[in-house]
Amino acid sequence: MNYAPEKFQPLFDPRSIAFIGASNDTGKWGYIVLRNLINGGYQGNIYPVNPKEKTVQHIPAYSRISEIPEVPDLAVIVIPPVLVPGVIEECVAGGIRAGLVITAGFAEVGEEGKALQAEMVEKARKGGMILVGPNCNGILRPSRKLFPQMPAVFPPNGRISIVSQSGNVATSLSQRGIKTGYGIGCTVSSGNEADLHCEDFFDFLANDPGTDVIISYVEGLKDGRRFFETAKRVGIKKPIIMLKAGGTEAGAQAALSHTASLAGLDSAFQGACRQCGIIRANNLEDLFNIGMGFIDQPRARGNKVGIVTMGGGWGVLAADAGARYGLDVVRLSDKTLSALNEILPPWWNPGNPVDMVAGNIPGALMKSLKILFEAPETDCILLLGIIGFIKIRPLPPNLNLEMVDQHIANTLNELSKAIQEVKNMARLYQKPVVTATEIPFAVGNMEERIFYQAGRKGFPLFRTPDAAARVMSCIVHHSGYIRERQNAGNLP
Amino acid sequence: MNYAPEKFQPLFDPRSIAFIGASNDTGKWGYIVLRNLINGGYQGNIYPVNPKEKTVQHIPAYSRISEIPEVPDLAVIVIPPVLVPGVIEECVAGGIRAGLVITAGFAEVGEEGKALQAEMVEKARKGGMILVGPNCNGILRPSRKLFPQMPAVFPPNGRISIVSQSGNVATSLSQRGIKTGYGIGCTVSSGNEADLHCEDFFDFLANDPGTDVIISYVEGLKDGRRFFETAKRVGIKKPIIMLKAGGTEAGAQAALSHTASLAGLDSAFQGACRQCGIIRANNLEDLFNIGMGFIDQPRARGNKVGIVTMGGGWGVLAADAGARYGLDVVRLSDKTLSALNEILPPWWNPGNPVDMVAGNIPGALMKSLKILFEAPETDCILLLGIIGFIKIRPLPPNLNLEMVDQHIANTLNELSKAIQEVKNMARLYQKPVVTATEIPFAVGNMEERIFYQAGRKGFPLFRTPDAAARVMSCIVHHSGYIRERQNAGNLP
Repeated sequence: MNYAPEKFQPLFDPRSIAFIGASNDTGKWGYIVLRNLINGGYQGNIYPVNPKEKTVQHIPAYSRISEIPEVPDLAVIVIPPVLVPGVIEECVAGGIRAGLVITAGFAEVGEEGKALQAEMVEKARKGGMILVGPNCNGILRPSRKLFPQMPAVFPPNGRISIVSQSGNVATSLSQRGIKTGYGIGCTVSSGNEADLHCEDFFDFLANDPGTDVIISYVEGLKDGRRFFETAKRVGIKKPIIMLKAGGTEAGAQAALSHTASLAGLDSAFQGACRQCGIIRANNLEDLFNIGMGFIDQPRARGNKVGIVTMGGGWGVLAADAGARYGLDVVRLSDKTLSALNEILPPWWNPGNPVDMVAGNIPGALMKSLKILFEAPETDCILLLGIIGFIKIRPLPPNLNLEMVDQHIANTLNELSKAIQEVKNMARLYQKPVVTATEIPFAVGNMEERIFYQAGRKGFPLFRTPDAAARVMSCIVHHSGYIRERQNAGNLP
Repeated sequence: MNYAPEKFQPLFDPRSIAFIGASNDTGKWGYIVLRNLINGGYQGNIYPVNPKEKTVQHIPAYSRISEIPEVPDLAVIVIPPVLVPGVIEECVAGGIRAGLVITAGFAEVGEEGKALQAEMVEKARKGGMILVGPNCNGILRPSRKLFPQMPAVFPPNGRISIVSQSGNVATSLSQRGIKTGYGIGCTVSSGNEADLHCEDFFDFLANDPGTDVIISYVEGLKDGRRFFETAKRVGIKKPIIMLKAGGTEAGAQAALSHTASLAGLDSAFQGACRQCGIIRANNLEDLFNIGMGFIDQPRARGNKVGIVTMGGGWGVLAADAGARYGLDVVRLSDKTLSALNEILPPWWNPGNPVDMVAGNIPGALMKSLKILFEAPETDCILLLGIIGFIKIRPLPPNLNLEMVDQHIANTLNELSKAIQEVKNMARLYQKPVVTATEIPFAVGNMEERIFYQAGRKGFPLFRTPDAAARVMSCIVHHSGYIRERQNAGNLP
């Protein structure tokens, strides 16, 4: 194993950046990518390289790399493909140790592109330079205010990191980091993976203290053996969740013309994933959801789930979904049921899910949850509906903006305390908890803010019982995988 | 068959309403349901019945039903269960022809409740009165401004109607009617279905000119044979999409204590659904999504799909999902490809999905779409990404509110025209189209407004390629079912 984390420093923590192909023309990617790098707040020096301009976007420009007055760590490259190999040569000569090749038109477009790509990689490797791309849309790392990328997407810092062979999927996922409030540790659009493969980025993220979970979109593997060896090593430290595209003939065909990826047989891939503990996601939403579920969450001792629900139908749907995904909707003990009996109204129907039967008894939801956490028969908890955490305040019809603001602030404040309390229980009893809710009582932008706040606090909040049960099943299965590896003595 | 649509008039189009259990106590359901009825803007007379109050919520109240000065069409009943049979008797005596029994505590809580429920139904049927419920959370019908319901949910008028055995699921779905912009034709929370079953409501909706598609949440059937006979008859006129809960043991157990439903074997149910053309949904989101897909959409002649995508990864995901759901990602003819060649940039990789390769050539997206619609080899179209319909306007960093408003208005306006153009093509070529997009360029509340506007126009817009492919597959399968029935001569 030839792994050296410091090799990634010029890429993910560069002290200065050369920008090859920097442009003042607002329609060009050389403008947009540089603009995003500047707008993202990057703190190191930026050296635009453009032989025709004195300044680019008000920053002094250089005709060639050799004229830059220091040795940049990273070169961002946004120039036509035929010019790239020559520029890589100049980078190597100038001591630049990492390149981010955004330019497309290489292996994905045919033989000529393939040859160019091979030439580029050869020059880089000979010179000890690592490359991301080509045919990618950039990287982002909020903790370093590093956003050299095509899309103007600026998530807050978070603990979910993304490795994607598709730029637009990388962007889709990064945007979920914004909307959900979870933020992003690091996003890499790996493109054609001419030099660095997704498994190299896994290795980097395994040792990145800012990353707790890795989510990945893959169309095909350049080196399957190396990929799975890496994944097995990394997956013990940090869960890897993967959406594999190209599993059908139609998808494989599309992947081939997209990133020149040869998608393999899905059954073989699935077996290898299982062995390495890689969690397979079903679609984009599922992929990010599962990532959310692993943040700041204890492992589950088993698959026995206790469900608390504010609505009967949601309870039935969660029980069904849980059972389908391999959770055991556990029969609650007499002791647990009689503890619940003391809290819930007489027309409550004892059982699991624990249905709050539209009850608005103050505190009943939190008390019921606590009973389920304490119950020795449960390993994990699904919570459906959060309205029971909030004081019900009838709102007047003549609501003004100030009242709306105050109302939202009060609600967020109450929920913030409730979330902390639930998280404390999860930690105390070492049982993961996943929540789904609607916000039927929302006014103004309350709904977005509730979901955002929950995300910032690392409290996974979904919109359907199905999504919550699915994410919990992944936590449970992965906890089982880790336990097996531990029992087999495969772990330090 | 004993079907008479006029029997539903007092329930869904009542000229006046008696409200039994009307309350001035803001914590009681008798207050909240009446408040929602009033706030919803109901235009007929409302007669609160409460022996202890002179007025309820400022409306003159009556001690008993017999004192009401006209014969109300509908009685909304929110009183303790033991009092319900007596009140039904009074309703019958007073000539009231329909009752909405919101009260819970009947068959779902045990033997005593079962007996009460049987007594209530017997009295109603003897008197020719139809009943919804008990143990339901109400009905809503925006076209009649009719909202006698527990939740304060007021969707705009739309063409999707909902029949749900769970009140909270009914509410979840009605809220999707608000958020998506699709609105709701009619929502019925059918509760324990002591008298009217979900199939009765299907019969009503089959003849309701305001309803184009029926979505339904079912935990168990009271009379399976009658249900499927009705569904088969109704499903030819309007697609029925169903989420069936209780398919697992855990779910069936939960359903039993929720609405006293005996959930049957899923495999038998699935077979019966297939025969009747009922489309099975996988979860709440899927259920509403499929409903959206059928609004204002031509039938598909076959399963051959053409895909246009603004991003490569999304194209691969859509191809995979499409293939998994039974769509044929069709090989485009040389004629189609050369027409596309004239529009797309030279580095375009000819194939299906048609990848716009991050191109921002004005008009290219609409032109490519048109080529796919025209192509005789396609039966239906998936469109991924809508940014190509919008002029790209770089926004200054010092954006003020007025500029944001103007920008959103311009964008909505451009999109509105593009949507109309795409819908016109769908109609002209008789090929359904489903779209998925993200709105990475959103400022302010642009994203919500784009999705809402699309929904108001009946243009199904989803957030992931998987969701779009899934919905299209349902349209394609259902079109095939209708074709088979037509070919078999089973249709008028």
